[in-house]
Amino acid sequence: MTSPVRTRTTVGIVGAGPAGLMLAHLLALAGIDSVAVDLRSRREIEETHRAGILEQDSVRLLVDTGVSDRVLRDGYEHEGIELAFGGAGHRIDFRGLVGASAQLYPQTDVFIDLADARERDGGDVRFGVTDVAVHDLTSPQPGLTFTDADGVAQEVRCDYLVGADGSRSLCRRTVPEDSRRQFFREYPFAWFGILVEAPPSAPELVYNHSELGFALLSQRTDTLQRMYFQCDPATDVADWSDDRIWEALGARVGANGYTLREGPITSKSVLPFRSFVQEPMRHGNLLLAGDAAHTVPPTGAKGLNLALADVRVLAEELERAIRKDDASTLDDYTTRALARVWKAQHFSYWMTTMLHALPDATPFDVRRQLGELALVTGSEAGSTYLAEAYTGWPATTARSTR
Amino acid sequence: MTSPVRTRTTVGIVGAGPAGLMLAHLLALAGIDSVAVDLRSRREIEETHRAGILEQDSVRLLVDTGVSDRVLRDGYEHEGIELAFGGAGHRIDFRGLVGASAQLYPQTDVFIDLADARERDGGDVRFGVTDVAVHDLTSPQPGLTFTDADGVAQEVRCDYLVGADGSRSLCRRTVPEDSRRQFFREYPFAWFGILVEAPPSAPELVYNHSELGFALLSQRTDTLQRMYFQCDPATDVADWSDDRIWEALGARVGANGYTLREGPITSKSVLPFRSFVQEPMRHGNLLLAGDAAHTVPPTGAKGLNLALADVRVLAEELERAIRKDDASTLDDYTTRALARVWKAQHFSYWMTTMLHALPDATPFDVRRQLGELALVTGSEAGSTYLAEAYTGWPATTARSTR
Repeated sequence: MTSPVRTRTTVGIVGAGPAGLMLAHLLALAGIDSVAVDLRSRREIEETHRAGILEQDSVRLLVDTGVSDRVLRDGYEHEGIELAFGGAGHRIDFRGLVGASAQLYPQTDVFIDLADARERDGGDVRFGVTDVAVHDLTSPQPGLTFTDADGVAQEVRCDYLVGADGSRSLCRRTVPEDSRRQFFREYPFAWFGILVEAPPSAPELVYNHSELGFALLSQRTDTLQRMYFQCDPATDVADWSDDRIWEALGARVGANGYTLREGPITSKSVLPFRSFVQEPMRHGNLLLAGDAAHTVPPTGAKGLNLALADVRVLAEELERAIRKDDASTLDDYTTRALARVWKAQHFSYWMTTMLHALPDATPFDVRRQLGELALVTGSEAGSTYLAEAYTGWPATTARSTR
Repeated sequence: MTSPVRTRTTVGIVGAGPAGLMLAHLLALAGIDSVAVDLRSRREIEETHRAGILEQDSVRLLVDTGVSDRVLRDGYEHEGIELAFGGAGHRIDFRGLVGASAQLYPQTDVFIDLADARERDGGDVRFGVTDVAVHDLTSPQPGLTFTDADGVAQEVRCDYLVGADGSRSLCRRTVPEDSRRQFFREYPFAWFGILVEAPPSAPELVYNHSELGFALLSQRTDTLQRMYFQCDPATDVADWSDDRIWEALGARVGANGYTLREGPITSKSVLPFRSFVQEPMRHGNLLLAGDAAHTVPPTGAKGLNLALADVRVLAEELERAIRKDDASTLDDYTTRALARVWKAQHFSYWMTTMLHALPDATPFDVRRQLGELALVTGSEAGSTYLAEAYTGWPATTARSTR
């Protein structure tokens, strides 16, 4: 066996999805070098359909740091959403209530913009690597080993390691059991998601409560739409013909007065529902960020936004630790990030339980859900509370917990 | 068997607690006569400790209709509450957020004021009756029979019957099963309530979240206090010495930095938790009001307020039906009242589940509760949403559903 090629960097990043690449970009702006690696090829990541809604601060982060102006040019600004229940839609007017909006811009495009920016700036990003392992997490010189896409064994020594390697994070699993606490919640349902070649069925996202279950009308472009409906987690997409899908979706949104614009279905998938947090988000010189540290159900559109909020704070705290040569300040990362994480966990849980048909629900629970939806949409304060969460709490919310 | 004494009135009211007497008073103001009966003696009702917080519109109703100025003189205006969690109290400033307040004034005093007002105005109220039955609910001449406190059998024929006879309502049970739908939710805990001769431990109500369970510090007067803590529904008060009570309460509120002012405990009781609604609130010429139609858990202090809101609407709708000689308009009572009932059911459920230690809660759920409490208290909109509900939605909220 030949010795690995040995190199050095300041921050070794496992995972080159949006969280890992955004962090690498922010560190580069602060003059801090990094190496980011990912098991997947660039094309694989580009072709994975994920979330599509950016909080306003996520948009600002991409624009202000020079990653993307395409997010403004090609994205669609959404100034509200509709909560549909009891036979009608009820708009939550983000612009009017909190002076903010959300941006429809798919995660794959965020990734493409970030990957392009790293390439343009000469960042060290290695896609399609194998045999990734992290070492010596609590030593001052932690390491990252992998075999690169050309089959060459590599060993990178660094000051800090970041695990931004998604919900099946390898880095998370290297933290010893007695040094972390894990928090779970499973949901007894999933989302059936489709991509449809058709014009939008509605101008903004429509969150549908119905006795048959939840459905979400969302959009991608003028000719491509994303729609979802609540299903059993064991659902096999092969059992669902296009006709059956349109019937299920149509009944759910039809109950609230919406009509679908149908078209060829180009993708079918089942999205699992899970809430997960690992605390703390630091173990020695390993920091966890994004899905590696926490997963939210998709109802509140918080997954990608939370990952970007994590790395915004992490870049600040890493810069401070590196400038002061003091790793101990990195506990602040965990404190600041988790304050936002638990708010987002609550919001995602709230949107989920308010809008879905819960399998163990009694008729009382269904009436109560309708009572809550009437309260939230009928109260300016209730609608504002929801709009604040949806468009994203200010970064100062996290900072104020220091 | 001797024939009953036969009389007539326009509205026969079963139950002479706050709901029944307030209705009788409002009807009298509109020139509509009524007879109200109750199985309990006046003294028994006066000596039953119940809720103590009035919404601002409940206060206005008592004052503006001439029932009570004592509610302002002897009651205590509370301009906020505290939500205590994670080691500290967080005030919800009702006055600052919604320009409203709640009034600390016990239900027994509301009852005394109403009973005095009916006596002063010559209202026909019969306490301590037996053998109450209602008849011919769907006929134009329903009837009410009972034996009065002097042992005389009575039969009252009327145009409308109202069941304001509390959570064990006899009237509710006379509605045939195929003409009503019942909605339940049981909670796996109860409140242990005490009355204490001591100065207040806090100037306003303090709702305590803690890992040991929920506790509420509330007040009655400068020298008498009401406190509660979450307990098992099967709890026997005989098993709880004063010392044990102070220890349980002290640990719960102490976790958030509060100190108890102890004193002689003069009453101990266990309050069950239950959510219940019967729909519709009309069956023929029988109308249900207050606890007879719905029960809320005590956390949101909505029980008495909802009863008063019911009869405010019911008096309007009865007057309209009587003036127009058209009972069909009484379906509007059910529609208007239920819109508020389901909001109150949601609010009570929300306050309950946000603040209590839920027996099946995972560590995730506890962290999420703390995330929610941080969100609600940290957001002006979230705090306003809670304050609106606590101080009472405007009556127009109900009216707008017509």
